[in-house]
Amino acid sequence: MSADRAVLQVREIGSMHVGGRSASIDGLPLREITFSPGNPPVRVDPNGEFEIEQMYVQYVRLAAPRAHQPLLLVHGGGLCGVTYETKPDGQPGWQSFFLHAGHDVHVADAVERGRASWARSPEFFGGEALFRTKAEAWELFRIGPDGSWNGSALASAAHPDTRFPVLRFDQFMKQAVPRWASTDAAVQAAYDTLARDQGPFVVIAHSQGCNFATGMALAHPDKVRAIVAIEPSGFPDPARHALGRLAQIPQLFVWGDHMAHSALWLRVRQGLDDYRAQLRAHGVTVDVLDLPAMGIQGNTHLPMMDTNSDQVAALVQDWMLLRGLTR
Amino acid sequence: MSADRAVLQVREIGSMHVGGRSASIDGLPLREITFSPGNPPVRVDPNGEFEIEQMYVQYVRLAAPRAHQPLLLVHGGGLCGVTYETKPDGQPGWQSFFLHAGHDVHVADAVERGRASWARSPEFFGGEALFRTKAEAWELFRIGPDGSWNGSALASAAHPDTRFPVLRFDQFMKQAVPRWASTDAAVQAAYDTLARDQGPFVVIAHSQGCNFATGMALAHPDKVRAIVAIEPSGFPDPARHALGRLAQIPQLFVWGDHMAHSALWLRVRQGLDDYRAQLRAHGVTVDVLDLPAMGIQGNTHLPMMDTNSDQVAALVQDWMLLRGLTR
Repeated sequence: MSADRAVLQVREIGSMHVGGRSASIDGLPLREITFSPGNPPVRVDPNGEFEIEQMYVQYVRLAAPRAHQPLLLVHGGGLCGVTYETKPDGQPGWQSFFLHAGHDVHVADAVERGRASWARSPEFFGGEALFRTKAEAWELFRIGPDGSWNGSALASAAHPDTRFPVLRFDQFMKQAVPRWASTDAAVQAAYDTLARDQGPFVVIAHSQGCNFATGMALAHPDKVRAIVAIEPSGFPDPARHALGRLAQIPQLFVWGDHMAHSALWLRVRQGLDDYRAQLRAHGVTVDVLDLPAMGIQGNTHLPMMDTNSDQVAALVQDWMLLRGLTR
Repeated sequence: MSADRAVLQVREIGSMHVGGRSASIDGLPLREITFSPGNPPVRVDPNGEFEIEQMYVQYVRLAAPRAHQPLLLVHGGGLCGVTYETKPDGQPGWQSFFLHAGHDVHVADAVERGRASWARSPEFFGGEALFRTKAEAWELFRIGPDGSWNGSALASAAHPDTRFPVLRFDQFMKQAVPRWASTDAAVQAAYDTLARDQGPFVVIAHSQGCNFATGMALAHPDKVRAIVAIEPSGFPDPARHALGRLAQIPQLFVWGDHMAHSALWLRVRQGLDDYRAQLRAHGVTVDVLDLPAMGIQGNTHLPMMDTNSDQVAALVQDWMLLRGLTR
């Protein structure tokens, strides 16, 4: 696939940290640490000033983009922007697809994830870091049905028609990053700053990230032109937010396969179906790509990593054309 | 500067995780966690299988590189690959410079840093995560002399001729990532795997990273064509390594200014001067760019972020031309 693609004409590759604040800590004891072999130990005072709660964004800007606004790719929980880069099977991912489709592409690492860095816990981030097990990923991402994990990908029963490159499951798990359950407000604040200062964007978000993308749009509706929600896992409470603020922001929900084999996803999907009805009642245009209903079987919670990722991306691109977001 | 640069002809932008291993944990208690607002709490079992100790590499491959081998950019301690991206002052960094100079550029995040992810501590990574304070960074990176930090960059006395964009010091500190003092062997193992499987590279390394770059060359001397050591902070113990294995690998040491105002750096510099003599005794070509001795004053420990970063990069590029590494 990549060999067939044209050379990209790139104007700029860059990155930035956005948001965050200065914070300080005191009262911790001194340490003596040897940082580099060959050097004497250094006395380290862990107390002092830090920057915390910033996020990271990397961008590739084309010499002649065809899309009217840049794309912002927002990852899901326990992951970072690598979600959209080269896939675990070594094939090009959605960052590459949408660059070749003529979009300037920004890829985010939320607060606490990847290159955004993370802050001392529990002093700054409450609670403890959570590390997703392979078992949880296998079932949460619907590579196999509930209860199918059996110690390794090879020993576990995947859905027979799964589009996930099962032999590369361990390679995928190398992308996993720890998360906290206590940092949502800081994550949202950084995304809101990103929208305010760098928008407008068309946002493609995955799973947990759909909630933050919607938060950005609620905070700065003039800075989010559209939301593509890939397998959204949560949503803003309609009782606490004025969903009418989203009326000018078309949304696309994209759903993979095998919901019926996951108790969690049956619940999540029902919640999102109800939320979609609320959005429509507030005048929001919401389209749905239900892949299995269209005859596209076997997609997981990670369609951007499945073997047919380009097929799904092309459907998203078609929707962006339909909604006048690119040409 | 960036506006003057030509459009880049890019063949591929991609990334990968390299190295690492499967590991498991048991005996930890169950948790109940609410991951996304609007969803019911999920019972999480923290025990199970994980991937740990992998590293991350992102690459930009040109349609027509002029250099004979790709560059690998290796960051220093408490930092990640962002070191080489857009500078804290918003100007293009060395990733951009060397792409425009005709190199395919790989940028690494070592094990535990940035997008490489990190593993549960202390179960997998011994000890605790270390967070660098602004005070330590200000003095360790020689923005100001020992004892000059005074609570904020504005309130602190920088070297009067510093090339660091002092007003952007907090922006720089957003790049800081935690580190462990216990993970050097895992970091080195991943770098060695990277060299073996993806090399050969010309390596530009910074500070702590110079030690890992040299380790790569000792492990796989056919996979490292040259080492540019930017302000190296450590080195392999000559008593434990056969430095003669490096004989065919030319090295360049680059030193900034104001060593005399840092007790730590006076010691480190002396150690590196002795090490350089050992390298030469083993037949290694080692050149030195002592910037202040060349009349270039005020560079910090971070010349790739200083305001004259392009000037320093151009000297490195000239050396690579001289040593036949590019054309």
